[in-house]
Amino acid sequence: MVSFSNRMDLLKGSEIRELLKLTSQPDIISFAGGMPAPELFPVEGVKKAAMEVMDEAGRVALQYTSTDGLPALREKIVARMAAKNGVKTDIDHILVTSGSQQGLDFSARIFLNPGDVVLLESPSYLGAVNAFKACEPNFIEIPTDDNGMIIEELDKVLATTKNVKMIYVIPDFQNPTGKTWSLERREKFMEVVNKYEIPVIEDNPYGELRFEGKDMPSLKSMDTKGLVIFLGTMSKILAPGLRIGWICAEDEILGKYNFIKQGADLQSSTIDQLIANKFLEMYDLDEHVAKIKEVYRKRRDAMLKTMEETFPKEVKFTHPEGGLFTWVVLPTYMDAKALAPQCLEKKVAYVPGGSFFPNGGKENHFRLNYSCMPEEKIVEGITKIAEVIKANLK
Amino acid sequence: MVSFSNRMDLLKGSEIRELLKLTSQPDIISFAGGMPAPELFPVEGVKKAAMEVMDEAGRVALQYTSTDGLPALREKIVARMAAKNGVKTDIDHILVTSGSQQGLDFSARIFLNPGDVVLLESPSYLGAVNAFKACEPNFIEIPTDDNGMIIEELDKVLATTKNVKMIYVIPDFQNPTGKTWSLERREKFMEVVNKYEIPVIEDNPYGELRFEGKDMPSLKSMDTKGLVIFLGTMSKILAPGLRIGWICAEDEILGKYNFIKQGADLQSSTIDQLIANKFLEMYDLDEHVAKIKEVYRKRRDAMLKTMEETFPKEVKFTHPEGGLFTWVVLPTYMDAKALAPQCLEKKVAYVPGGSFFPNGGKENHFRLNYSCMPEEKIVEGITKIAEVIKANLK
Repeated sequence: MVSFSNRMDLLKGSEIRELLKLTSQPDIISFAGGMPAPELFPVEGVKKAAMEVMDEAGRVALQYTSTDGLPALREKIVARMAAKNGVKTDIDHILVTSGSQQGLDFSARIFLNPGDVVLLESPSYLGAVNAFKACEPNFIEIPTDDNGMIIEELDKVLATTKNVKMIYVIPDFQNPTGKTWSLERREKFMEVVNKYEIPVIEDNPYGELRFEGKDMPSLKSMDTKGLVIFLGTMSKILAPGLRIGWICAEDEILGKYNFIKQGADLQSSTIDQLIANKFLEMYDLDEHVAKIKEVYRKRRDAMLKTMEETFPKEVKFTHPEGGLFTWVVLPTYMDAKALAPQCLEKKVAYVPGGSFFPNGGKENHFRLNYSCMPEEKIVEGITKIAEVIKANLK
Repeated sequence: MVSFSNRMDLLKGSEIRELLKLTSQPDIISFAGGMPAPELFPVEGVKKAAMEVMDEAGRVALQYTSTDGLPALREKIVARMAAKNGVKTDIDHILVTSGSQQGLDFSARIFLNPGDVVLLESPSYLGAVNAFKACEPNFIEIPTDDNGMIIEELDKVLATTKNVKMIYVIPDFQNPTGKTWSLERREKFMEVVNKYEIPVIEDNPYGELRFEGKDMPSLKSMDTKGLVIFLGTMSKILAPGLRIGWICAEDEILGKYNFIKQGADLQSSTIDQLIANKFLEMYDLDEHVAKIKEVYRKRRDAMLKTMEETFPKEVKFTHPEGGLFTWVVLPTYMDAKALAPQCLEKKVAYVPGGSFFPNGGKENHFRLNYSCMPEEKIVEGITKIAEVIKANLK
C-alpha cells in the first residue's frame, strides 16, 4: 500500500497559486498576485549579461558549482547587504538559494520538530506558513499594529510558551499588510529576542522598494548574538525568473543551511548565478530599482486614492511606504472569501485574507497587490471592488 | 537557546563535496567527481538558445512561472520519455525539478516518517542517502550482483519488515557501481513491488549514456499499478549548470510532489527552463549525446584496460556498459579510506566507497569516475593507484 508521510496531511496547494491560475486571463484586473511588473524587467541587460557569461565562461556556466554559490556573486551580495541593510558580513556567511522561498523551507527543516512552536506576525506570508507546515509545527500569531509586532505580546508569549524554536518576521513592507516596523519596535524586539535567545528569520524581499519615509535598519544589522537569519532575494529588484535568493547567518547556523541545501538540490543554477553576477557588474542596479520604485509608487498612489474616494468609511486599509501590497480590513461581519466571486464576476480579483492567519478564523480581510496593473486599471478595479463592498454593507 | 531539529543530528556535509574541494586543484588527476566533461558542453548552442529566448520571450523568462514547469518543456520531456524510456505519459504527469537531486529530497519528504524503512541497493548513491537522512528513516541495504538487485533478498525483506515506505533504485549504470539491471531482474522486481505495493523511486540520470549492449526498458515503462516514480535529468546529457530535472509519476503522487515544491522553492528557474526548451527545439540532443558517449566510451576503455594491466589480481572492478563510474573492490583487509591519502600524495583522487553503504562497515571499495579526465591522464592516474594498492598488499 502506498502511504504518505504525516507531514503530507497538512499540505494543500496554495490557494493563491490556484487563484492565480484563474486570474491569469488577460481580461481580469488582478490584484491577486505578488509579482513584479514584467514591463520593467531589464530584458536587454539580462540578455547582454547572458551573452557575456556564455562568451567568457560558457563551460563554467554549464557545469556544477559549489553548494555555497559563486564567490563573485556572494561578494556582490555582501556589498549590497552593507549598502542596503547595514549588515557587515563576508562571503563565508552568505549561502545562495533558489529564491528566498527556499530559505523559508530550509529554516523550518533546520529548527522545527513536529509540535514545536513558530511565532509570527498576525497575519503573515502564506507561502512561509505553507513551507513551515511541512515540519508540522504549531503557530502562535503575535498581534501587530501600524508600527509592527506588539512586543509586549511577544514577550508574554515567550515567557509562557515552551518549545518556541523560531520567530518569523517581515519587518519591511510586510506581505500581506504592507506594514513596516518602527525603529523603536525593532530595538525592543531585539532586546526580547536576546533575552530568550530564539532564532529569528528576517524575511526581506521588499526592503529596497521604499517610496517614501526613511530606511529602517535591518534586524540583522542590530543582531549582537548571531540570532538573526536574514533572507534576501533578487526577485523583486531584478527578476524572479532567475531564482536568486540568499541567506546571511552566522557560522554554525549557516553550516546547517549548507547541509540541507546539499541534499535539497546540490546548488542553485550556475548559469543564473553567473548572469545575475554579470548583470550587477555591467549595470547599476540602484538605477534600475529607482525606476521600479517610481512606477510602483504611482500605482500605490492610484490605489490608495481610489480606495479613499470609493470605499465606505467602515472599511480600513494600510498605507504602505513601499513594497507591493496594501491590506484591507472589512467590517467583521463581512467575509472576503464570499465577496471574491462577486468581484470575479466584475472581472476583478484579490486574495482573501483568511489564509494569511495560520490559525484561521479571520475572514474580513483581503490583500491587494498594486505592482502589476497600470494606473487606469487600478482605478477601474478598485471602483468595482468598492461597488461590491457597498452592496454587501449591512 | 538556539536548538536545531532532530533531523540535523543526522546530517553531515557530503564527504564527496568536501573531497571535491581538495581535488579541484589543476595538478590533481581526479576520478573523484561525477561531473560531465565540460569540454563537451554545447556552449555555442546554449548561448544561441539563450539569445533567442531573451529576444522572443524576455519578460516571460524573467517572471515567475507555474510550479509544474513550462508546458512546452514538459511536452519535450514527454516525447523524450517515450523515445528513451518507453514511457507513455503526458505533461500532467511531469513536474520540472531543480535537478533530479530535488526529486530525491522531495521523495523522502513525501513518503517517510522518522523510523520508516527505505530499501535500496547496496551500495547506493551517497547524495540520495544524505537527502533521505533528513527524514530520519532506517535503511535496509539489498544485496546486488552483476545483474542488479537480488530479488529473492528483496522479497524476503519485504515479507518480514514493517514500515517499508519506499524503494530507491538506479537500474541503469548505477552510481557508484556502474552496474545495470538485466531485463529478467527488472521483471521480477516489478512482480515483487506489485505484490507489496511499495512506491519505487527509479533514479535515471545516466540511462541515455549507453556505450554498448542493448537498452533496457525503464521500470516506469513496466509499471501497471502507478507505483514507480521516475526521476530524469538534463544534467548528464545537456548541462548540470541549468538544473533541469523532472519527476514522472501518477496523479495523486505527483500532486504531493507539487505541494512540496510550492513550499520548497515555488518553481524551478524560468529562464533555465526556457533555455533548455529552446535548445531542444533548435538542436538535435541525440546527436549531442552521441558525441558525449563516444568520448566517455574511450575514457572508460582506457580506464578498464589500464586496470586490467596494472591492478593485482586480488582486486576486482565492474565493467560498466555506460554511465560515468566503475567500482573497485579491494581485498577485505584493505581500507580505501586509508589508501586515499597515499594516492593524493601521488596527485590522484578517488572516492572511498564506505559512505555509499548507508549502514556503513564496508571500507574495501572505491568509486572511479572516468568522464572528466583525458585518456592519457586516466592511464597515468590508474597506474599510480595500482602502485599504491600493490604497496599495501599483504
